[in-house]
Amino acid sequence: MTRPRFYVPGLDPSRDETILPSDESHHLVRVMRLVAGDEIAIFDGQGHEFQARVVRADRNGAAVAIGEPILTTPEPAVPTVLVQAVLKGDKMDAVVRDATMAGVERIVPVVTERSLVGLNALARAHAHERWQRVAVASAKQCRRARLPAIDRPQSLTEWLEAPFDGRRLLFVEPSSDAHGVQPMRAALAGSVPPAIACIVGPEGGWSSAEQAAAASAGCALASLGQMTLRADAVGLVAVSLVNVMFDGS
Amino acid sequence: MTRPRFYVPGLDPSRDETILPSDESHHLVRVMRLVAGDEIAIFDGQGHEFQARVVRADRNGAAVAIGEPILTTPEPAVPTVLVQAVLKGDKMDAVVRDATMAGVERIVPVVTERSLVGLNALARAHAHERWQRVAVASAKQCRRARLPAIDRPQSLTEWLEAPFDGRRLLFVEPSSDAHGVQPMRAALAGSVPPAIACIVGPEGGWSSAEQAAAASAGCALASLGQMTLRADAVGLVAVSLVNVMFDGS
Repeated sequence: MTRPRFYVPGLDPSRDETILPSDESHHLVRVMRLVAGDEIAIFDGQGHEFQARVVRADRNGAAVAIGEPILTTPEPAVPTVLVQAVLKGDKMDAVVRDATMAGVERIVPVVTERSLVGLNALARAHAHERWQRVAVASAKQCRRARLPAIDRPQSLTEWLEAPFDGRRLLFVEPSSDAHGVQPMRAALAGSVPPAIACIVGPEGGWSSAEQAAAASAGCALASLGQMTLRADAVGLVAVSLVNVMFDGS
Repeated sequence: MTRPRFYVPGLDPSRDETILPSDESHHLVRVMRLVAGDEIAIFDGQGHEFQARVVRADRNGAAVAIGEPILTTPEPAVPTVLVQAVLKGDKMDAVVRDATMAGVERIVPVVTERSLVGLNALARAHAHERWQRVAVASAKQCRRARLPAIDRPQSLTEWLEAPFDGRRLLFVEPSSDAHGVQPMRAALAGSVPPAIACIVGPEGGWSSAEQAAAASAGCALASLGQMTLRADAVGLVAVSLVNVMFDGS
């Protein structure tokens, strides 16, 4: 029987017991209807996971006794960063869910020339907080013990100007007329980089100026082949490809 | 300006004009509200596409004048077949949509030991017909000129017993204790096969008996790495990986 999992940020395993955060307590008590004695697992979002047993579950919350450590799923051999142009509606939620499941280390939501939503609108909608909740829910479900960091939304320019220790791939559509586009295998050839950033555009693609700016900033222009994937699937496919290409198992 | 695309099975380019099928006529007249003189594209689902101009669009349907051929997106270098255990609810629709977009040649819906839906229920729900409509809608959107064949739902056993000219990969979960599981890169190493079948399980995974049956039938057991992807994403990732691995561009 698989133990239901709960997220306890800042979990201190040297203590015997811990109190779940209020939303996790709610999930345990109200949604899962667990009671004292039930066996669960708790993870800290930093890659640590423990067996635990419910000692109290009531309207004031849930307390659990911390047990033995659990062997967690290994993280990908090469850390990936998904730099994703914010997509329309709830598509960005799906991107965050899938990227978490695919094992990204960090998600950087960016606003681009052809983005259909701006930084102010994202702030008003508390998008950053929502994406963090989506990542927690996804990690709980896919049994990952590490949560991706999710940066505050920023402009593509801002991200391109910051230092990055690793290889950066800007994905362009098959129909793009950009020069120097490499198929994915070629873009990943050579020595194993310390990290890989996959930069994925919005529904309308990149402007020529953005492609040029990324190229001057040292990004490789990469393609996923001839097929035009929907915008919200490109990140999942790109990150999964990187994982498989560098899979040492 | 990108021409809206319509599907005309059996399209005969030696004729000057053609009538759109009724659902495509509906889409042109009622949804897109196109009128005589508008420029569109028509494709036959077999890889051929032509410019066309609306000559009549009314409540009786749409007639178009057939123009010059259009250069279509190349199909993947190695044809893929997605053998997909039928998933719950509308998840199978998403799988068909994504597999079409990723360029599969054929989709084989199979019912397995842990499938949550059976062959009779699928027949009653006219699932096969619905999936064919989903594939048409996806091809229209992603600008693919070829439609995947969609087989009638069958049992996994039935499919394993039929001949297949190519390599067959049964995808197992990272948590699987099956013997001889290969990482994807190893499973795709060696000579280029005439075709590749990616066999993807249901939400609850394969039974040990199914894994053993597939292995005796000559399927390689393959894994997509350490991460547990949601069941409806595995096919898209697997097929995209095959495409990229054999991408000759």
